[in-house]
Amino acid sequence: MKKLEQLYEGKAKKVFKTEDPEKYIVDYKDDATAFNGEKKGTIAGKGVINNRLTNHFMKMLEENGVPTHLVEEISDRETIVKKVSIIPLEVIIRNIAAGSFSKRFGVEEGTALKQPSLEFSYKDDDLGDPLINTYHVLSLGIATQEEIDTIEKMAFKVNDLLKAYLLKFDVELVDFKLEFGKTSDGTIVLADEISPDTCRFWDVHTHEKLDKDRFRRDMGGEEHAYQEMLRRIIGE
Amino acid sequence: MKKLEQLYEGKAKKVFKTEDPEKYIVDYKDDATAFNGEKKGTIAGKGVINNRLTNHFMKMLEENGVPTHLVEEISDRETIVKKVSIIPLEVIIRNIAAGSFSKRFGVEEGTALKQPSLEFSYKDDDLGDPLINTYHVLSLGIATQEEIDTIEKMAFKVNDLLKAYLLKFDVELVDFKLEFGKTSDGTIVLADEISPDTCRFWDVHTHEKLDKDRFRRDMGGEEHAYQEMLRRIIGE
Repeated sequence: MKKLEQLYEGKAKKVFKTEDPEKYIVDYKDDATAFNGEKKGTIAGKGVINNRLTNHFMKMLEENGVPTHLVEEISDRETIVKKVSIIPLEVIIRNIAAGSFSKRFGVEEGTALKQPSLEFSYKDDDLGDPLINTYHVLSLGIATQEEIDTIEKMAFKVNDLLKAYLLKFDVELVDFKLEFGKTSDGTIVLADEISPDTCRFWDVHTHEKLDKDRFRRDMGGEEHAYQEMLRRIIGE
Repeated sequence: MKKLEQLYEGKAKKVFKTEDPEKYIVDYKDDATAFNGEKKGTIAGKGVINNRLTNHFMKMLEENGVPTHLVEEISDRETIVKKVSIIPLEVIIRNIAAGSFSKRFGVEEGTALKQPSLEFSYKDDDLGDPLINTYHVLSLGIATQEEIDTIEKMAFKVNDLLKAYLLKFDVELVDFKLEFGKTSDGTIVLADEISPDTCRFWDVHTHEKLDKDRFRRDMGGEEHAYQEMLRRIIGE
C-alpha cells in the first residue's frame, strides 16, 4: 500500500490517503510542540518510538476487546490505519493529579485521586481545546448521549488495561489523552496515538518522568525518556 | 431576631449569626464586582432589589417543591435564612449561549442551545472558580455521587420553574448560577440568591439586558435594569 495525497499535517503526525478508500497511512514526525503549539522543538527518534509504542499498546487493547483504528505497521514511522472521522473530543483520564489538573484545582502533583477522573476537551485549536462537559456536548450537538456513553466506557476500559499492563514494566500511568473516531459503518474505535506524547508515564519507584513533560518543562533528557519507554515495553 | 457576630462578608452580601444557632441573617449590599473581583463598583439600590427578588423567587420555588434556605424577609435588605454549610460548587444552567460559554466554545451570544446545559465551578477564589466536572468532584472528594444527582435534579427543576415563571413577565432566562447548602440534618437546600447579579435576564422581545452584564460590560443603565426587574416581577 502506497502513500497518495497528504490529507493533513498535525503537530506530530502526517496522514495520507492510500489506494484503499477505507485506509489511511499515518507517518510519525520527530517534531514536538507544547502549550497549544506555543513551544516548538524536536525530540530525535520520537516518531519511530511513538509509532512502535502506539501500535504495541493498540494491539494489546484489541486483544482485550477494545476496537482501534490499527491495521498494520509498515515501517518504523508508518502505519496503515482505518479511515475514521475523528470525534472532536479529547478524552483525558487521570489516575494521579498532575499538570493542568494540579494547577486548576490546587492539588499537589503526585496526589492519588480517590477514583480515576475523565474529562473532555473540545478539539479546536483556535479556542485552545477548552474543557467541555457532557451537558455542553449535548447542548452544542457535538455528540449524542449514546456516543458519549460508548466513549466513556471505552476510555475507562483502556485505563484499566493500560494501567495494569504498564505496571508489569514498573511504569505508572498518571494520566493520558485519547481520541476516538467513527469508521464508515459508524463504529466508534480508538484512534490517534498512545505514547509518551499523549500520556504521563512515571517510574513506579523513583517517579522519574518518562514522557513529554521533560520537554514541556525544559527538564532535558527527553530522548532518553522516550528510548527508556521503548526499551521497557518492547525491549530494545 | 437580631444580628449578632458577623460570620462572613462576601462581594454582595454579609452573613450574621443570630441567637438561634440554626438561623443566619443575610444582609444584601449595593457593592458590585465582576471578573472574580477585578472590577469593582456600586449599583445604587441593588441590595434591596436582590433581597426582594431572591425571596420572591425562592417562595415561588418552595411552593413548587424546591426546598430553599429561606425563612423570612425582615427588612428591605435583610432576610433570615437557615444555617447551611455551602457545598463548594457553583451550578450554572444555560438555556441560551452567552458570556464565558460563548467565548469558550466560539458560539455566538444569543444562540439557543439544543437542550439546557449544566456546569459546575469549584468555588475557590484563589483558583478563580475553575470549571469542574462530575468525575473531578468525585476524584477530589468534594461531593458524593448522590449529592451531585440531587443538586443536578434540583437545578434543572429550578430552571423549568423559573423559566416558565419569568416568561409571564416577558423575561427570558438566558443562564444563571445557583448554590446549594446542607442544613444541620443533612438536607440539601437551594441557598445564596437568585437575582440580576446571578442570572442573565433578557427582555423576551427586544433582548435588552436586565442584569449585571450592563455593569460587567460598561453598558450603563444597570440601576434602571435592576429596577425594571423589580417592577416587572413584584410590581413596584
